[in-house]
Formats: sequence, structure tokens, C-alpha cells
Amino acid sequence: MITIASDFGSVYPAAMKGVILQETDARLVDIAHDLPRQDPRGAAFWLRFALVEFPPAVHLAVVDPGVGTDRRPIVLRAGEHALAGPDNGSLVPAARALSEGAIDAYEIEIPDPASATFHGRDVFAPAAAWVHEQGVDAIESIDQLSAIESYVDLTLPDPDISGTRIEGEILVVDGFGNAITNIPGSAIEGIGRCLVNGEAIPVVETFEAVDRGSALVTVGSHGYVELDVNHGRGDERFGIEAGDSIELTLAEENER
Amino acid sequence: MITIASDFGSVYPAAMKGVILQETDARLVDIAHDLPRQDPRGAAFWLRFALVEFPPAVHLAVVDPGVGTDRRPIVLRAGEHALAGPDNGSLVPAARALSEGAIDAYEIEIPDPASATFHGRDVFAPAAAWVHEQGVDAIESIDQLSAIESYVDLTLPDPDISGTRIEGEILVVDGFGNAITNIPGSAIEGIGRCLVNGEAIPVVETFEAVDRGSALVTVGSHGYVELDVNHGRGDERFGIEAGDSIELTLAEENER
Amino acid sequence: MITIASDFGSVYPAAMKGVILQETDARLVDIAHDLPRQDPRGAAFWLRFALVEFPPAVHLAVVDPGVGTDRRPIVLRAGEHALAGPDNGSLVPAARALSEGAIDAYEIEIPDPASATFHGRDVFAPAAAWVHEQGVDAIESIDQLSAIESYVDLTLPDPDISGTRIEGEILVVDGFGNAITNIPGSAIEGIGRCLVNGEAIPVVETFEAVDRGSALVTVGSHGYVELDVNHGRGDERFGIEAGDSIELTLAEENER
Repeated sequence: MITIASDFGSVYPAAMKGVILQETDARLVDIAHDLPRQDPRGAAFWLRFALVEFPPAVHLAVVDPGVGTDRRPIVLRAGEHALAGPDNGSLVPAARALSEGAIDAYEIEIPDPASATFHGRDVFAPAAAWVHEQGVDAIESIDQLSAIESYVDLTLPDPDISGTRIEGEILVVDGFGNAITNIPGSAIEGIGRCLVNGEAIPVVETFEAVDRGSALVTVGSHGYVELDVNHGRGDERFGIEAGDSIELTLAEENER
Repeated sequence: MITIASDFGSVYPAAMKGVILQETDARLVDIAHDLPRQDPRGAAFWLRFALVEFPPAVHLAVVDPGVGTDRRPIVLRAGEHALAGPDNGSLVPAARALSEGAIDAYEIEIPDPASATFHGRDVFAPAAAWVHEQGVDAIESIDQLSAIESYVDLTLPDPDISGTRIEGEILVVDGFGNAITNIPGSAIEGIGRCLVNGEAIPVVETFEAVDRGSALVTVGSHGYVELDVNHGRGDERFGIEAGDSIELTLAEENER
Repeated sequence: MITIASDFGSVYPAAMKGVILQETDARLVDIAHDLPRQDPRGAAFWLRFALVEFPPAVHLAVVDPGVGTDRRPIVLRAGEHALAGPDNGSLVPAARALSEGAIDAYEIEIPDPASATFHGRDVFAPAAAWVHEQGVDAIESIDQLSAIESYVDLTLPDPDISGTRIEGEILVVDGFGNAITNIPGSAIEGIGRCLVNGEAIPVVETFEAVDRGSALVTVGSHGYVELDVNHGRGDERFGIEAGDSIELTLAEENER
């Protein structure tokens, strides 16, 4: 199985699929092709979210603002999984979540010719196909891969929690406008209300617990605190976007 | 074969696929992940439209405004097909169209733990995989399913036709802005022109039968009357959206 | 393997898949369902771009502004590939790129009943399934196909290059706003700067070679000159859309 993710939008992903299917008859599964554009950190969040659900697979994931520069094309081996993409950190949180132990890294030799702008098709898709065909256990035997000592790390930021005050950050905004923070759901367990940047907002378990058009704080299926609007867009309601910091002040249930 | 439909947009459907592929190597076919958001009736229209084309399959379909409330998660058995999703009526018109006879309903036991906001991944995807693996004929033997006597029904509304006057309703607007009514195509057969909310509009067989930018009434491939604009959006042209009522007055061909 | 492309947006492609899967268990691969709407020439560009990457397959491709008129439904045989769709030229550049030699054309008999507005489901999807099941080499034996002498040709226009002055055309705009011309990349090789409609723009190999928000000229992975903006939209920056003509005047590297 090969999963495929990118920020390429339409048509370009099909070219990657054609290249892969020249080499292997593996099952292909699309993760998404509208990952946050040219944003390795946003991509890292979504890749970790989705890839941890999969059985052992090769994961091709290309959010690559540095394509054509000297950033390295890499494969990370994480347990029975392998991830192919640019060495910009976007693969790392998913690799860490998929691995029981160490992550091994390999640099992909760039074929000649390769376009300067579409390594997804010309570099990463063939590499994913080779790893699938050889098998993750035989990754060392693939001529076009060379073991490397280090890779660009990326850690999604932790919030700063002191008592009832939490300083966090918006990691991504999903397609519905839900603004997803880096604050773990456990931080608001049992809380009925909180101040979001100073404004009191109910903390609820489901969107329908508030009126349509009303703001809410909830814990998303990814396990993180989200700022949302029932039948609306949280990002617009709160005037926030990915990368913005956010301050929550918790109130106890009985203060609600 | 398992088909997958939702209003989840991007990335979330991939998590459902990973969960399914942990349990089965069934073929997966995406129906759509931009079904009318949190609109069981609109979802019901599109599910019926698409699913009737399929050979026997398990259909996972999640448009679920009540997730996290006490609405039940269900599987409907319809002939050789099964449909898994929320008990809000969205599955029913498709089930009725797929079944030669009765529809049998089963409640899905919610696993523990399950998120409060993503039953697509935590409840419905596993249920679809189990039904696929056991087979629809052995659905009674699945421990996590319990036969239930009733389920939430949903019938797409019929128009009110009296002579040349039809009172109908916009069921859905597709991605092109075509406003699809509940009026069967047979109601306008042989008609060359009609009044739409009082305005004369040609009834034609193809978009190109009118000038670009001009409004038209036609019968869509789903068999229902649509209000469209050639190279434009019918919803904007007529100022209508899903749920709005619409009045057609038919003129004979020779009055055109 | 059957690839599927269209300008149908959402849900409608699923109906085509259901019809195909009634006839065959072929692998299905989506190319795109947001091809330039009702634009056979734009579709032709993208189909050629994507389909050349694939191993032998049947390609179902439906961008069909003439559906319901007397335009013919056809299958083109191009080497070991076959392409099914409307006879409006959209299949031809891809067929020419896939074929080592001649292209053979066949008219598809329209089944009765067939809708007037959805030949993708009612005419082309069954034809693609039959060709897949019989095999491209046995295409002559398919009862519903009749060899025809000619088909609508379509050639993507060549630019007019005289010295350092190039008159070209925007063929398509991709989802990111990159405006893709008909000017081959070789025409700007070694060039560091050019005038685009009179304005000096750097010619670079990667988006990141210019500041975010700045315009650039580069050669895309399709091999053609693009007018782009780093982290922005080229079409808006230059005020251009598909079909517009464009004039480039090249400056030598040392004039930069």
C-alpha cells in the first residue's frame, strides 16, 4: 500500500500515480492534496493525524516549498512504515508517531533528468515505488537510497500551561474554518467555559450544544482543542489563522 | 467493495480509510466528501443518486449533525447492500432504492473509547469493515450489531402538481450552481417553456440550446427538473437555495 | 486499469464508477474532476500532461460541452492505450502523445435509454468498461463500436518565435493561479529576465528564487513557460486568463 499526500491540488497528483503504477501494482490511497500550501508544519500536523490510522505502508507526502533548492529528498523508515518526501520536517511527527523505536533516514539520489519544479513526480514517486517493491525491511539494498546521519527535525510546539492560563498556538485551520490549537484536550477536561483572548466561550462536547452561529471550544477527533462556530467558521469568528498565538483562561464548571 | 461518502472535506476521510484498511483489503470507492454539510436530506438525495449505480457493496455514508448526541449509529441492510451511518434518515432513500424488499436495521455498539466528534472514524468505519468481512448475509452474526425495530425515516418531498401549475422545492444545488428540484422530469415532457416563479424560461434538452449566460429548465441525469444557466449558476440567477419552494407554470410547446 | 477524468466536480464521477464496476473489477484511477469546465482545449492540455505518465490503460475523459447535440461519442486507440470521450478534440493531444503510430477511431453506439445530459455515465463509462474487458487489441470485436474514418482534431497552438520576441498564449491556469503558456521551456533556456507584456520579470528555476509575493517566469514540470507569483496567483498578477495572448521579449543573462 502507498498513501499519497500533497499540496498540489488537482491533476499533478495524477502524474505521480502514473509514475508509481509504471513500477508497482500497489494499492494507492489518497490522504489529501490540499494540505496547507507550502507549509511543512501544517502538513506535519495533518500527516500525523491521518497516517497513524494506517496499517504498514509507504507514505508519499510532498509539501515542498524548497523544491529545486539544495534541500534533500529523503525516505524515513519508521518501524514497518516508510515515508518519502522533502527533508523539511513535514514527515517527522508522523514518523515519530508510527515508529516504535528509532527513525532511520536515507537520501534519495535525484535521477537525471528531473524537473526542477516537480520532484513529486520525478523523485519522490519513483522512490516510494521502489521502497514498496523492495519492502521496507530491504530498504538498505535500494541503490538509489543512501543512509544519512541526520535530517531536519520538526516538533509541533507545546503550549505553555500555568494554572488556569494557557498560551497556545493555532496549528492549522481545516476546510470548515475550525481553528485547531496545539492545546491537548486533557487541558480543558471538566471545564465548562473559558476565556478565548479575553472573551467567554462555552466548552462543549458537540457543535449542536450551542446555537447555530455561536462560537464554541471543543476537543476535536485529533485530541486537540479547537475554536469553532456551529454552522460557521471559527477562524473568521475569532480573527485567527495558522501560526497565531491564542490565550485561554479556564473557568470551572460551576462558574459557568 | 466499500463506498465512502461524507461531508468531511479533506484529510478526515483518509483517517476513515486507514481504519478500514486495518480490518479488510476491500476495494474502497469514494462517492464524495463534500455532500451538503450537516444536511441529511441533501445527503439523502445524492446518496440515492450515486449508490443505485453500484453492484452489491457496503456503503459508509456520514453526514452527521447529531454526532455526540444520543442519535443512534446504524447499519441498514437493503438487499445485497448494507449502509452504515447515523440514524438521521440520510441513508434511507438510497436503501429503499437498493432494496427489492424490506430494509432491516441494526444499531452499532459504540466502542470505548470513541471520540465525541468523529464517529466516522471511530464507529462507522469499523462497522463498515466488519460487515464487509462477515458479508451482508451474515450481518446477524456480528456481535457489535443489534437488530432494531425502527429507524428515523426520511422521504424526499413530492411536488404538488395541479394541471399546468407545479409547486416544488429545491432539494440540492450542485457544485456548478444547478438548482435541482423534486419535480420529476416526466412532469415537463413535451413542454417548450415554463414560468419559473412567474418568469418565462425555455425548457430544453441541453445547456447549449440556449445562449451562454441564459437561464434554462432541463431534466438532469438524476431524472429531476433543474434550473440552470448555460456557463453560469442557476442558484444565483434565480436567487434560490436548497429548501426553497419553487413554482412552475407550464406552457405548451406551441405557445413557446 | 481505467483512468477517469472530467469537469463534473463532485458526486457525478461516483455514478460513472458504479457503472464501470458493474462490468469490470479493473483498477480505477482518478485523474481530476475539475478539468477546465466545458473547455476541450484546456482539458486536452491536462490530459496530455497526466496520461503520458501511465502504463497501458483505458482512459475515460469527459469534458463535453456538446452533450446531447449530435457530436459523436468516440473511442480512440493509441498504441496499447484507449481513450473514451466526446469527439471534440479533447482526447487527441493525449492520444497522439501515447501512440507510437496511427490513432484509430471508433464511434460508440448510444444505448437506449440514455440521458441527454450525462453521457459520462450512460455512454462513455460502459464503453470504457467494455474496452477494458475485451482488451485494446480486441477493440474491433466490440459490437457497440464502429470504426470511423475521421475525428475532430485539436492541436494545441504553437507560439510565434522571432528572435528575442515570442508571441504565445495562455493555455490553462492551474488551481494555484499559475498561468501556463504554450511556449516551450527551451525557448527561454539561459535567459535571466524577460519582458512580459512590456514588464521586466525575472526568469528563475524555482519559486523561492524571488521574494514571496513577487512575479516570476519559470518552466513548469510540463515543460512549458509559466507566469507565476511566489505564494500568490500569476493570473491575477498579470490580469490574464486561458486563451489570452502573451508577449515575451527575452533579455540575455548578462543584461539582468
